[in-house]
Amino acid sequence: MKAVVYKSPRTVTVENLDDPRIEQPTDVIVKITTTNICGSDLHMYEGRTSAEPEMVMGHENLGVVQDVGQAVSRIAPGDRVSVPFNIACGTCQNCNRGWTSFCLRTNPTDGVDGAAYGYANMGPYRGGQAEYLRVPFADFNLLTLPEGDEHENDFAMLSDIFPTGFHGAALANVRAGDRVAVFGAGPVGLMAAHSSLLRGATEVFVVDKEKDRLRLAADVGAIPIDFGEVDPVEAILEATNGVGTEKGIEAVGYQAHDPTGEEHPELVLDNLVKVVRTAGSIGVVGVYMPEDPGATDDRAKEGRIGFDYGTFFTKGQRMGTGQAPVKRYNRELRDLIIAGRARPSWIVSHELSLDEAPSAYEHFDRRDDGWTKVLLHPAA
Amino acid sequence: MKAVVYKSPRTVTVENLDDPRIEQPTDVIVKITTTNICGSDLHMYEGRTSAEPEMVMGHENLGVVQDVGQAVSRIAPGDRVSVPFNIACGTCQNCNRGWTSFCLRTNPTDGVDGAAYGYANMGPYRGGQAEYLRVPFADFNLLTLPEGDEHENDFAMLSDIFPTGFHGAALANVRAGDRVAVFGAGPVGLMAAHSSLLRGATEVFVVDKEKDRLRLAADVGAIPIDFGEVDPVEAILEATNGVGTEKGIEAVGYQAHDPTGEEHPELVLDNLVKVVRTAGSIGVVGVYMPEDPGATDDRAKEGRIGFDYGTFFTKGQRMGTGQAPVKRYNRELRDLIIAGRARPSWIVSHELSLDEAPSAYEHFDRRDDGWTKVLLHPAA
Amino acid sequence: MKAVVYKSPRTVTVENLDDPRIEQPTDVIVKITTTNICGSDLHMYEGRTSAEPEMVMGHENLGVVQDVGQAVSRIAPGDRVSVPFNIACGTCQNCNRGWTSFCLRTNPTDGVDGAAYGYANMGPYRGGQAEYLRVPFADFNLLTLPEGDEHENDFAMLSDIFPTGFHGAALANVRAGDRVAVFGAGPVGLMAAHSSLLRGATEVFVVDKEKDRLRLAADVGAIPIDFGEVDPVEAILEATNGVGTEKGIEAVGYQAHDPTGEEHPELVLDNLVKVVRTAGSIGVVGVYMPEDPGATDDRAKEGRIGFDYGTFFTKGQRMGTGQAPVKRYNRELRDLIIAGRARPSWIVSHELSLDEAPSAYEHFDRRDDGWTKVLLHPAA
Amino acid sequence: MKAVVYKSPRTVTVENLDDPRIEQPTDVIVKITTTNICGSDLHMYEGRTSAEPEMVMGHENLGVVQDVGQAVSRIAPGDRVSVPFNIACGTCQNCNRGWTSFCLRTNPTDGVDGAAYGYANMGPYRGGQAEYLRVPFADFNLLTLPEGDEHENDFAMLSDIFPTGFHGAALANVRAGDRVAVFGAGPVGLMAAHSSLLRGATEVFVVDKEKDRLRLAADVGAIPIDFGEVDPVEAILEATNGVGTEKGIEAVGYQAHDPTGEEHPELVLDNLVKVVRTAGSIGVVGVYMPEDPGATDDRAKEGRIGFDYGTFFTKGQRMGTGQAPVKRYNRELRDLIIAGRARPSWIVSHELSLDEAPSAYEHFDRRDDGWTKVLLHPAA
Repeated sequence: MKAVVYKSPRTVTVENLDDPRIEQPTDVIVKITTTNICGSDLHMYEGRTSAEPEMVMGHENLGVVQDVGQAVSRIAPGDRVSVPFNIACGTCQNCNRGWTSFCLRTNPTDGVDGAAYGYANMGPYRGGQAEYLRVPFADFNLLTLPEGDEHENDFAMLSDIFPTGFHGAALANVRAGDRVAVFGAGPVGLMAAHSSLLRGATEVFVVDKEKDRLRLAADVGAIPIDFGEVDPVEAILEATNGVGTEKGIEAVGYQAHDPTGEEHPELVLDNLVKVVRTAGSIGVVGVYMPEDPGATDDRAKEGRIGFDYGTFFTKGQRMGTGQAPVKRYNRELRDLIIAGRARPSWIVSHELSLDEAPSAYEHFDRRDDGWTKVLLHPAA
Repeated sequence: MKAVVYKSPRTVTVENLDDPRIEQPTDVIVKITTTNICGSDLHMYEGRTSAEPEMVMGHENLGVVQDVGQAVSRIAPGDRVSVPFNIACGTCQNCNRGWTSFCLRTNPTDGVDGAAYGYANMGPYRGGQAEYLRVPFADFNLLTLPEGDEHENDFAMLSDIFPTGFHGAALANVRAGDRVAVFGAGPVGLMAAHSSLLRGATEVFVVDKEKDRLRLAADVGAIPIDFGEVDPVEAILEATNGVGTEKGIEAVGYQAHDPTGEEHPELVLDNLVKVVRTAGSIGVVGVYMPEDPGATDDRAKEGRIGFDYGTFFTKGQRMGTGQAPVKRYNRELRDLIIAGRARPSWIVSHELSLDEAPSAYEHFDRRDDGWTKVLLHPAA
Repeated sequence: MKAVVYKSPRTVTVENLDDPRIEQPTDVIVKITTTNICGSDLHMYEGRTSAEPEMVMGHENLGVVQDVGQAVSRIAPGDRVSVPFNIACGTCQNCNRGWTSFCLRTNPTDGVDGAAYGYANMGPYRGGQAEYLRVPFADFNLLTLPEGDEHENDFAMLSDIFPTGFHGAALANVRAGDRVAVFGAGPVGLMAAHSSLLRGATEVFVVDKEKDRLRLAADVGAIPIDFGEVDPVEAILEATNGVGTEKGIEAVGYQAHDPTGEEHPELVLDNLVKVVRTAGSIGVVGVYMPEDPGATDDRAKEGRIGFDYGTFFTKGQRMGTGQAPVKRYNRELRDLIIAGRARPSWIVSHELSLDEAPSAYEHFDRRDDGWTKVLLHPAA
Repeated sequence: MKAVVYKSPRTVTVENLDDPRIEQPTDVIVKITTTNICGSDLHMYEGRTSAEPEMVMGHENLGVVQDVGQAVSRIAPGDRVSVPFNIACGTCQNCNRGWTSFCLRTNPTDGVDGAAYGYANMGPYRGGQAEYLRVPFADFNLLTLPEGDEHENDFAMLSDIFPTGFHGAALANVRAGDRVAVFGAGPVGLMAAHSSLLRGATEVFVVDKEKDRLRLAADVGAIPIDFGEVDPVEAILEATNGVGTEKGIEAVGYQAHDPTGEEHPELVLDNLVKVVRTAGSIGVVGVYMPEDPGATDDRAKEGRIGFDYGTFFTKGQRMGTGQAPVKRYNRELRDLIIAGRARPSWIVSHELSLDEAPSAYEHFDRRDDGWTKVLLHPAA
């Protein structure tokens, strides 16, 4: 089969590999119909992770079941399925509690809890930017979808970024009537804004400096704040009579930069502490890393982020963090899509073939204007 | 009346002041029977806050109602009452939501939400280390107690440290069956341990290096860890089969120090991130300040605490912070005392007269052996 | 002043009464701009309660502050305010917990917890279908609104039915992605449907047999089910592939009747138990009474409702009940109105003067076609 | 192997049956070391259910893994395990949400959600009052225990009654400082009392009329109320200054009877509505059935329980019901046993061999004095 393979920083190629096969009786093989390039793929692409050469990329996968192991009883060949990016066993303590993002059993090799497809430090699993994908513990992991090809691009958002944005809103405990500040209008930030509005938020401010992304934020009903033009803290405080928002969502991560483009990993957290009111909550789904050899600051190299903790404490704020347990949300998000109440595909900018992946990575990594979200259709 | 007055760093005196009087129709005057010295009084005593000379100290107050304003209808003269350290209006958005620690109306002078008696930056209110205390919005703020003097020392813990310790357990979401790591065996840490066990914790580890405090932790059923003798992270991981605890509580604050006595404000947060397991929660009731002129580190001077945020995120942990809204908990804690199921006075080491306050501050500030918790009885 | 006075079953008149005055220092006098007739007013109007002659009707009140008692510090003359129907002290245990609908202090006369304006068995308080209204504990109870007359009819829904409908959704724990069955398309049921959609419900089924009300349900995005034409249980099960809905809301109450018009007080609860799936939740905001002398069934006369409890248990369902604590929700609902995301006035059918109240009661009580919601403007 | 077989009302025998074998690759065979007789076994024994002759009894099972299917990867032969009474697939929507008591896949035969071992209407599964038991979806269902035989009788409570009692406390939302009324001092009621105290309840009242059971309630720290001697509602109201308790737990079920022994299925619900205060919560773990041919009342025959719903609504109470999802609680309860903080075996009255089962059923069914809880050790 064809697959997108990481070779070295800023180089991926499309290669022919052996097809995956059933290895455990609980496995399923999925024929991929759509697989997306994610912002976190760029961390690997840029060589800012421990990803090793020859890894197959791709953790946002959608397709049709091709083959099932003999212990698989809920899923059958022909089922159209969304594949959550977390690989979870379904039987450990964390999975039992709904924390599939921190499965205790599927990643025995990296000393961390949690596994994913084609992801640095998340276990020895091939990604799905390929024609076929092996899915472990498939009865537990796979979400079934209506057959056919309706909503293909919306459903393609269910494996990662829509649940991840929703997780940001859930960690921040966004409820009906809240005002929300979302930092970052990349795909995850946009999904966090969409999710906040679905949960009944009154006003959602989205901060970024890329105009195409801010337009997408406005399209979904959020209020765009261009930090290239205004101080986002002042702008949000002014729009809320000096009070600030009830809730905040971090959708930028450790590569936060100021308007001049300089990296300041504590910048977004500082801003959130300022704009969220006393006793408010902050959800952090932008990625932070325990080690970042590429950081400009010695403390940041070891994952230390010196944000304004004194004010965080004085304001009695709360903060929830971490990768999303996709299964906790994807069923309801699927139903919102089917009912026509959610339309996460509004951010899709490109639909390409697998062969076009190397070029797509280049454009997306340069944040070329209009390259918001790239979908690959291997069969196309 | 006699009152304990802050004069300058490390100097308090007992002086004669005018008695307080009813200023607003919602006020009450309480004759103080017991008022405690709190660890956070020492921050002011040491001159590490913006507390101004002539402030009357004391925010942990218990007494009997002497006089009531004409709009007071729930409280009557003669009522025995616990006075929560938070001064709350009872009618603003934060009070309505139970966040009396962040009242929007009672502190118009300091630019922060929340007020307290005799406390730096928390409004222009006299403290209760005195014979009498004026209590604003008394119908809302006061907790009534059974008349007489039974449980006097237990009830004296209801104005601050017992609810504050309980708040730490609540912020960490401690539930039946959890293991908990409490850092700090000062009065708040000990109350957090007691509270965790009341909530059904399986095992509570308490980390400190003062042997008298560790003994008190053991007395209440917790497992003492002496970080002067062992690495507390290793000790707790070993005691939990390498897994760590489900929950953690920070009861130390920004003056955290290593076994040699050197200050490392990020030390306790780092340790909590290490010992709490993936998807676990951390409650922070040790105090952190937006400005700390006395800090040894430039970033810490401006409230920046560079703890290991990358690991915090990677483990998907949550953190809640801030001063306790005492009213949320004090009724139930009072009932647990009356029922004989809670005994917070087990930590009391000294009962003194008001005149002995200056000497008590000296001993307590030096952490002299055995000076765990000092109660002042103004009428004694 | 003019006021609507209950005289006897099915008779109200407009009379001249003394203006209310400040009685307690915590009182406020509100000049009423809009006051609604509520479905629960009809229970009193029909003589099916213990309401006594000469009671002034009206618990859904909106206006401008005319005068304030001397202990009032948050509210000032000229403030535009919504008056929650619950009269709450703000200082008892239930008020402290946010249960203003069960205040322990404001209703000393009726042996129940909770008080309201112009309401049978809810304390000795005049209603607001009048030119002026006395509001006790006004700093606590009143919700301030933007000055002027914008959103007047939307804001008029904030004193009762919008928060009551939202409470139904909250008791049922309606969350993003849920399907919801609402029984009853009266004003409260319609608000429950609107609220469920605001909270992110996927599909909301609304069951009634009045076509004008079902049209209003469709207008707000719900799916109308006419139980005069189809079996509502079959219809909802069919629309959900036999699974049923995650959540259900009861907005009918003890006068539930079948398509022929015969009363069956257990009918709606039975239907909810059938259409809500295992482990689902039901919110009950339709009113049930401990005594109903007008009931046709001996058990129902004493408040006994023999619904299918065996199935309720077997399906592991939950049920929350009771009058709404308006203050818990009205601030956020106000903000949703201001932001243009909620439009509760879509149900208003009539705006009348106070003098037209007797005629309005007649029409509304007969459920005359199109009489969905009546607003009285005393100054008009 | 030997097994306890239901033959007809009030007749069970011990028979030789074929050993169970691995049928699905996800199965495990457990050699039973301890299996208990449960109060709900008596419903079947007495012929008040649809249980069919030849069913092997027993859903409270503990043992050692003998054999595993080839898809089993978490559990291994030799593991000591507790077997939750719910048989759950681990992959359906209800299992994903933690509602293993309402699994959508394991009971295809009875038209209800949820399955169990040896239980009427809960699927075609043999019970564990036998030498061996087949456990489906074993990786998901089984709870591992420390090897050896320590805590054998405590661990034997983990398959049903300890989690069921804890579920009652969880449904009632029992929290630190609450007062709780538990109706029924059978094994489940006693476990609900123990669980409430573990969760920090202030006072737990336990109502029954069997003196041996009331003694056990007192032994664990609860306050016994003998309804053969006093009116339980009056007694609890008097002990709570007329206020009542914050929470209530139903541990009796549809066979509730008055002091004279006459069945009144609504009696306990009525009493709970009376003793629980406004806005309080009630957890119902006593069993109610959709059909009860043995009921004395026509409505009760079809599962209708005409309790005082009007007061339930007027007091704004909540109620949660249903069989316990054992997996949600058993891990933490196991850890509380290991830590020495829970001792559920205090209720065990008899330890017998499998051959003594028929006689044990007789004694237990007659509620013979001192027959509180019977454990069978098949290997003894």
